[in-house]
Amino acid sequence: MFGASNFPLAFSVAGGDTASALAAGCPVVVKGHPAHPGTSELVGRAIRSAVAKRSLPEGVFSLLQGTGHELGSTLVAEPHIKAVGFTGSREGGLALVAIAAARPEPIPVYAEMSSVNPVLLFPSALANRGEALATGFISSLTLGSGQFCTNPGVVLALKGLDLDQFITAASKALQAVMPATMLTEGIQQSYDRGVKQLADHGATKLVARASECIGRAQGRGALFQTIGAALMSDASLAHEVFGASSVIVACDSLDEMEEVLRSMEGQLTATLQMDDSDLAAAKRFIPVLEAKVGRILVNGWPTGVEVAHAMVHGGPFPATSVSRATSVGTLAIYRFLRPVCYQAMPQTLLPAELRDDASGSVSRMFDGVMNRA
Amino acid sequence: MFGASNFPLAFSVAGGDTASALAAGCPVVVKGHPAHPGTSELVGRAIRSAVAKRSLPEGVFSLLQGTGHELGSTLVAEPHIKAVGFTGSREGGLALVAIAAARPEPIPVYAEMSSVNPVLLFPSALANRGEALATGFISSLTLGSGQFCTNPGVVLALKGLDLDQFITAASKALQAVMPATMLTEGIQQSYDRGVKQLADHGATKLVARASECIGRAQGRGALFQTIGAALMSDASLAHEVFGASSVIVACDSLDEMEEVLRSMEGQLTATLQMDDSDLAAAKRFIPVLEAKVGRILVNGWPTGVEVAHAMVHGGPFPATSVSRATSVGTLAIYRFLRPVCYQAMPQTLLPAELRDDASGSVSRMFDGVMNRA
Repeated sequence: MFGASNFPLAFSVAGGDTASALAAGCPVVVKGHPAHPGTSELVGRAIRSAVAKRSLPEGVFSLLQGTGHELGSTLVAEPHIKAVGFTGSREGGLALVAIAAARPEPIPVYAEMSSVNPVLLFPSALANRGEALATGFISSLTLGSGQFCTNPGVVLALKGLDLDQFITAASKALQAVMPATMLTEGIQQSYDRGVKQLADHGATKLVARASECIGRAQGRGALFQTIGAALMSDASLAHEVFGASSVIVACDSLDEMEEVLRSMEGQLTATLQMDDSDLAAAKRFIPVLEAKVGRILVNGWPTGVEVAHAMVHGGPFPATSVSRATSVGTLAIYRFLRPVCYQAMPQTLLPAELRDDASGSVSRMFDGVMNRA
Repeated sequence: MFGASNFPLAFSVAGGDTASALAAGCPVVVKGHPAHPGTSELVGRAIRSAVAKRSLPEGVFSLLQGTGHELGSTLVAEPHIKAVGFTGSREGGLALVAIAAARPEPIPVYAEMSSVNPVLLFPSALANRGEALATGFISSLTLGSGQFCTNPGVVLALKGLDLDQFITAASKALQAVMPATMLTEGIQQSYDRGVKQLADHGATKLVARASECIGRAQGRGALFQTIGAALMSDASLAHEVFGASSVIVACDSLDEMEEVLRSMEGQLTATLQMDDSDLAAAKRFIPVLEAKVGRILVNGWPTGVEVAHAMVHGGPFPATSVSRATSVGTLAIYRFLRPVCYQAMPQTLLPAELRDDASGSVSRMFDGVMNRA
């Protein structure tokens, strides 16, 4: 498991990846993220203490720390490692995928990498509550200095007066946001580079920035505007800039909005802001979104990810390297399970849960019907 | 989907791979196997006719035929292809895995490749019914000239008089087996090469061959004997020879038998031949087998693969490239499904099965409990 920079608890040493692998019965080796070595060490010691208290084998959990790529690469290539969990950059994730694929025994790498999480503003919603949408959007965009996998990095809407007013309100809200310290100086420098690229791009217009920043590694939110045709002709406008940066895309029509969406890469989430009278317009987008994202949400913001049975924190490439998996929620355990068929086994050789006299602690299927009886 | 040589119906144009992908809602492109182009064409036309009768889009199914590697390689590299199903050789499967991994968007290759399906003969079973086991084993070994993925290519047992008698009976049974035409001349030549390698190996002894063969592409079953230490020092003795070839491994003790098993690669199946008094001896092997194979069966033979809910026709590498999947049984559909989370969606935008007024045609989970209510 690779700890992520942005969630020192939820996606790091004892986060969901580690929890789901341990729950699946796998020993876990964590490569701590160099952004928070102290937190990693504290959490690692807590796990080691739990392992000792429960008299589990010591090898059930290990924490290794280091700053270069060599440690991580070596771990992924190590024959005893059978699966990899990773949350981070596209570049980092793809490097691990390549190492795993080149092993004599290829193994799965569950890498959650990159997403701009399109938000679709439908006409009635935009007309009826543009200002509230603008402030909600800026809150989501700048939460945690924008350092969320599900940060809303692209907003699609029809051009016109309502969108202009939304942009004005969003700009005003962003300008009032105070600067915030980013996770590391490297992340802040990378963010500044990404913002500069968008600002220098001939097809975009910078419409607002957050307050001036003073101090180290300060993130200063940025909001851009472009048109549908521009995004379709240059996909880099929809590449993730990790931090509070978003591009508002003015589309000529719903047809063009659908085309823009189809041209985009796979995403973790898509958000529909819509009122009842937008239902007909929204309906056509659902099949497109079902093929493009892992989570579709309506009239919320994508930056909250609930740990729940129905959660999917995953999505088509490059959102993740294995689109059939989620790294949040109870389904996350399936990344580390493998089915075994027991055929004509004597009762005493079966796992307790599968014996005729099992207690009903798990659901079982008899003749095609699942039940706990 | 790549058609397999050995199942012109079950693992080819309209086989389980195609069926599970279509059931998952995926359009399917089949690369027909050059061993049965005529059958492929007939089945392909039947599907095309069904597509027309049901007024489905023509693109839902395509069949392409060819003899070289170029067609298959091109298909796996094609950006519109999102997953690959394959049953065939380890070399062929790994070549496709490498092509898929090198794509800008890597995709999963579900390759079922190679397995010798160890059979464990426990002491009481061997003593009580050695002769019946020998004839059952030879029937399974020579079924379809041995051209089954689940063919029993390695037999493990304790050395001694009972094993000697088993070998004598198995040899007699094999010698009585009539020659049978193999699927292609290429497969027969490859089989002969594999048998020759085993025969020339310093650590094996050829104990029996089936009747003399006359005619084209005839497969002549071969039975070898070796010792546990030999197999552990040279893994090639446990490499698949596609056809009716098997190696009986005489072990010094149950400890050595377990060691031999641990030294082997991942397998589709393992078979335990055991009587009640073997239960204690067998129990220690279950955790080893659970980590090594996809299906554990007792007092049967591995060459029958039932299409059923509980079937797992898969297993750890190199049995398959994705050990979490099965290519037979209802679970096979999961290779081609991806979860989508619908959050706060209006009823009319949800799939019919997920609406509040759904008919109960699928199980749904409410607050952690699955039901059809």
